[in-house]
Amino acid sequence: MTTRDALAAVREEVRRTPAYPFTRIDVPVKLDQNESPWDFPENLKKLATERAMSRAWNRYPDLNADTLAERIGAYEGWDPRGVVVTPGSNVLIKLLTELGGINRTVLTVKPTFAVYELEAMMLGARLVEVPLHDDFSLDASGLEAELRKGGPGLVYLTQPHAPTGHLDREDDVVRLANAASKAGGWVTVLDEAYYQYSGSDYRELARGHDDRVVLRTFSKAWGLAGLRLGYALTTPAMATELQKLVPAFNVNALTQAVVEVALEHPQYVRERAEATVRERERVLKALEAHPTWVAYPSSTNFFLVRTPNAEEAYKALISKGVLPRRQDKQHLLAGCLRVALGTPEENDRFLEAAMQIQANG
Amino acid sequence: MTTRDALAAVREEVRRTPAYPFTRIDVPVKLDQNESPWDFPENLKKLATERAMSRAWNRYPDLNADTLAERIGAYEGWDPRGVVVTPGSNVLIKLLTELGGINRTVLTVKPTFAVYELEAMMLGARLVEVPLHDDFSLDASGLEAELRKGGPGLVYLTQPHAPTGHLDREDDVVRLANAASKAGGWVTVLDEAYYQYSGSDYRELARGHDDRVVLRTFSKAWGLAGLRLGYALTTPAMATELQKLVPAFNVNALTQAVVEVALEHPQYVRERAEATVRERERVLKALEAHPTWVAYPSSTNFFLVRTPNAEEAYKALISKGVLPRRQDKQHLLAGCLRVALGTPEENDRFLEAAMQIQANG
Repeated sequence: MTTRDALAAVREEVRRTPAYPFTRIDVPVKLDQNESPWDFPENLKKLATERAMSRAWNRYPDLNADTLAERIGAYEGWDPRGVVVTPGSNVLIKLLTELGGINRTVLTVKPTFAVYELEAMMLGARLVEVPLHDDFSLDASGLEAELRKGGPGLVYLTQPHAPTGHLDREDDVVRLANAASKAGGWVTVLDEAYYQYSGSDYRELARGHDDRVVLRTFSKAWGLAGLRLGYALTTPAMATELQKLVPAFNVNALTQAVVEVALEHPQYVRERAEATVRERERVLKALEAHPTWVAYPSSTNFFLVRTPNAEEAYKALISKGVLPRRQDKQHLLAGCLRVALGTPEENDRFLEAAMQIQANG
Repeated sequence: MTTRDALAAVREEVRRTPAYPFTRIDVPVKLDQNESPWDFPENLKKLATERAMSRAWNRYPDLNADTLAERIGAYEGWDPRGVVVTPGSNVLIKLLTELGGINRTVLTVKPTFAVYELEAMMLGARLVEVPLHDDFSLDASGLEAELRKGGPGLVYLTQPHAPTGHLDREDDVVRLANAASKAGGWVTVLDEAYYQYSGSDYRELARGHDDRVVLRTFSKAWGLAGLRLGYALTTPAMATELQKLVPAFNVNALTQAVVEVALEHPQYVRERAEATVRERERVLKALEAHPTWVAYPSSTNFFLVRTPNAEEAYKALISKGVLPRRQDKQHLLAGCLRVALGTPEENDRFLEAAMQIQANG
């Protein structure tokens, strides 16, 4: 049997979807994944490791990471029966697509986070993307029209937004969540992966609404991308349905131990988020002096910079030991690179490299 | 908006599917999850912890756990481009259902592993279950008929089988895999979660066939259920499609470090599997003296025992500090409990308790 015939076993929707776009490149100053530049504090790492060692590795972890869900509930001021925990919030995006997107509609904006689109395509949802305005703000009227005519399905409201770093007006976000509830049949996903850098908080918009889900993660401000832990905040009724889709025993025992320790010592998160925000404003201010690049304001731990030629600028930065992420193939983002904030020293190195790239990059 | 209205956002297929059937019960002798009774060896636990400590927790792990896939490939004698790694093989069952089951057919036997059925139901596959023969062997003719008429879709061949512990005749398994390939459009999943206890090995049936996938796990013989690591062995072409469905960065950095250490010291796995097989034969032999219970032969680290009244027997065992798993609601399994092999001391305690339960249990 030839390869072509045998792969007929794979659904056409999967075959025509590209893989997640990421290639690892080893460069000293790594600003391509919006990670925290600081590792989990050394004393907490030691505490967490001792806790992990003391557990039985041969036993399955909690079915639904119940203890961790309780701790997250306490931290967030949220009914723990409405907390759903998975290995990264990208898993929740898949599961929400399963819950509300298969054979239905997935509504998002353009540009947007690739995972929303890839899961929708592979799982057989109708993908509708409403372009952002030129200033990266939501086209609230356009989205509202799609909500009225296009359900049932899933709608993503990403606040602050990736990959633009833009934070929308609260009344636009509230208006869209209400429009989705009024139209009915929509799951509204408020993705808040970067909320610690923006000062925004949409928990109250979701509280008590079975059709609304807030997503948060330990991969950014908590500095635990390597551990893989994301969570959803919703009502107990919606959580019961979403939890069915989470594979049993999905969060391993070591991650549970580490995140428990993090939640017992959360002070570092705010301190580091504040430091990153200060760095962001410093770097954006410094880039105003750049002769050809234009950096965009941001409410996250990264920002977009528009260059005359993204490919040249990307290569030039890498040659100087700094790794950004290309975003220039996306709608509205011609010439754009995405740059995460690093440590002050890393940001200095980025600025120094950027200032040396003038004409062609 | 009332709860009933709002949950209209949840697909009907999810709402009508029950949750994974498992309730944690704290009892001294835990024989309900087919775990290894022995923790990861203490010296390896220390090595693994040191390796985990040395890594950066703030950085995302490998996109596709590439290093670990290479190590597994070397251990299994398998092209690493055909290895797909996820947090538990139950995740792979979901992803395979996404790959080949949505809006198609999922074919399995009855009774079978609950996850095959639950994922099929929630993701909108047509579920076809061909009953096993009374001796728990495959109805190869019945399955072959379904393969000819029922595709495209996904077919599970579980060897050895759960929850029966039965190992089928190799020529039946080969015949069914060939029938699936001949019919076309089928993904054949050879689930080998328990192969270390059976001496069977279906890698060669999958090698070079794009439409066949072997599933294996670190949760059983490797004694690492708490770490969550399962993997698929298939062709590079099929792995490329399956990998698209794996959420990016899905396997956390700590689990990767631990499993690397395990793969560098695999000797304990065989020793422990052999000890478990010896215990299995000892316990089954001892149960022949039971006046009312009938235990079934097994090729795994657990066995079924038929009791006059599963509920009574279950409660009586728990009252004596021993926890089995009920299986009596399933086809062919009236009165049956599933019992994992524990340490020799735990198995003695089980036997002692069992022998005290005579009349009603």
